[in-house]
Amino acid sequence: MAHPSIILINPQMGENIGGAARAMLNCGLDDLNIVNPRDGWPNERADAMSSGAFEIMPPVGVYTSTNDAIAECHYVYATTARPRDMIKPVFTAEQATQDMARRIAEGQKVGVLFGGERSGLDNDDVARAQAIITIPLNPDFSSLNLAQAVLLVSYEFSKHIESLQPQETPEDVATLDELNNLYERLEMALEQNGFFRDKHRQSATMRNIKNMLARSELSAQEVRTYHGIISTLTKSDS
Amino acid sequence: MAHPSIILINPQMGENIGGAARAMLNCGLDDLNIVNPRDGWPNERADAMSSGAFEIMPPVGVYTSTNDAIAECHYVYATTARPRDMIKPVFTAEQATQDMARRIAEGQKVGVLFGGERSGLDNDDVARAQAIITIPLNPDFSSLNLAQAVLLVSYEFSKHIESLQPQETPEDVATLDELNNLYERLEMALEQNGFFRDKHRQSATMRNIKNMLARSELSAQEVRTYHGIISTLTKSDS
Repeated sequence: MAHPSIILINPQMGENIGGAARAMLNCGLDDLNIVNPRDGWPNERADAMSSGAFEIMPPVGVYTSTNDAIAECHYVYATTARPRDMIKPVFTAEQATQDMARRIAEGQKVGVLFGGERSGLDNDDVARAQAIITIPLNPDFSSLNLAQAVLLVSYEFSKHIESLQPQETPEDVATLDELNNLYERLEMALEQNGFFRDKHRQSATMRNIKNMLARSELSAQEVRTYHGIISTLTKSDS
Repeated sequence: MAHPSIILINPQMGENIGGAARAMLNCGLDDLNIVNPRDGWPNERADAMSSGAFEIMPPVGVYTSTNDAIAECHYVYATTARPRDMIKPVFTAEQATQDMARRIAEGQKVGVLFGGERSGLDNDDVARAQAIITIPLNPDFSSLNLAQAVLLVSYEFSKHIESLQPQETPEDVATLDELNNLYERLEMALEQNGFFRDKHRQSATMRNIKNMLARSELSAQEVRTYHGIISTLTKSDS
């Protein structure tokens, strides 16, 4: 039975990676992925805090970029403590895990991004996600420990595990890898055609474009259609 | 606005006390109590893991017995990982916190007992509680870290905080202190009258009696009635 991928981006303390693994496995989740862990991988402190979870889970996925870590996902949630200035659905952990269970039942692969201890997810990683999870906490003391944030999402998801049924025929939802290829192709085409008059604004503009495209939850077929559009438009330009 | 008292019994690692405090305050709870912390109190490791929570919360209550820690509570929940052979309501964290919110709205003071890291709550402490909280987890890997168990209960409770309204006229529910006085009085009366023929079974028998009485959720008036009954019966015996 498929469960969400938990993806820790730039985690700093091995203790928190181990604590996250333990919390996940407590709740029946076992797909842990890390992007650029500060202290490398494997990590003794992570082992010590995991209570043996790593011996039971499949090997942790280790990546050097967020794009690689989410390549196979169809839908990705970014966990953020504070609201961001991006137009995306914003869920509580309870709402998000309901949404995850529905998508998984439809055959989608979903991922949840958690940022590093110091500053959370950067804007580019939030832009890669199609939705945001904020956990409503005490506004005067809201800094949740990384492992505890992973626990809350895993715990809320675990309430749905029994109701999940395997699905034979996944829908034709585009993977993040297909979306990223589209974004790159589009950015290159826009750049070559002088779209970014202010170079300093290029990455912010692309973030807005990615946010727009992510919101529409493209199918793989629609992504191919976009590629066709870009091909057509760039040919007519030359 | 009243919130549940979190009561850690025989906690071992300061890190977990600090982590519990941080998790509670994240969720808007600030009434932390500890019974016989292994390494004494205050505790530097607890401070280090608390992220400053202790500077914001009221002072932690430190007790040498569970009875003292729960004396002012009307209703106490015992968190246990495994089912116990005691007839009490068994709640999930979600159900229990709904029950807590209802009781608090009625003016009751509620407490949640958490056992130490090694072996959880002992049977006597479970017997002191009127209800049990078990958090349904992966049966193959269910050992939740102490701070994370506190987080899950605090987090579930936080979903009810906004809906809580202060209550002016508490109902006449007996406090645990009033119940404990009744238990002691009853045990003494039973002992003096030769009720415990098998001395080795005395504590188990008393646990069963306490479990029975706890389930009936006595009012302070009913506790006084019981005292009257005991007085009457022991007088007629003499």
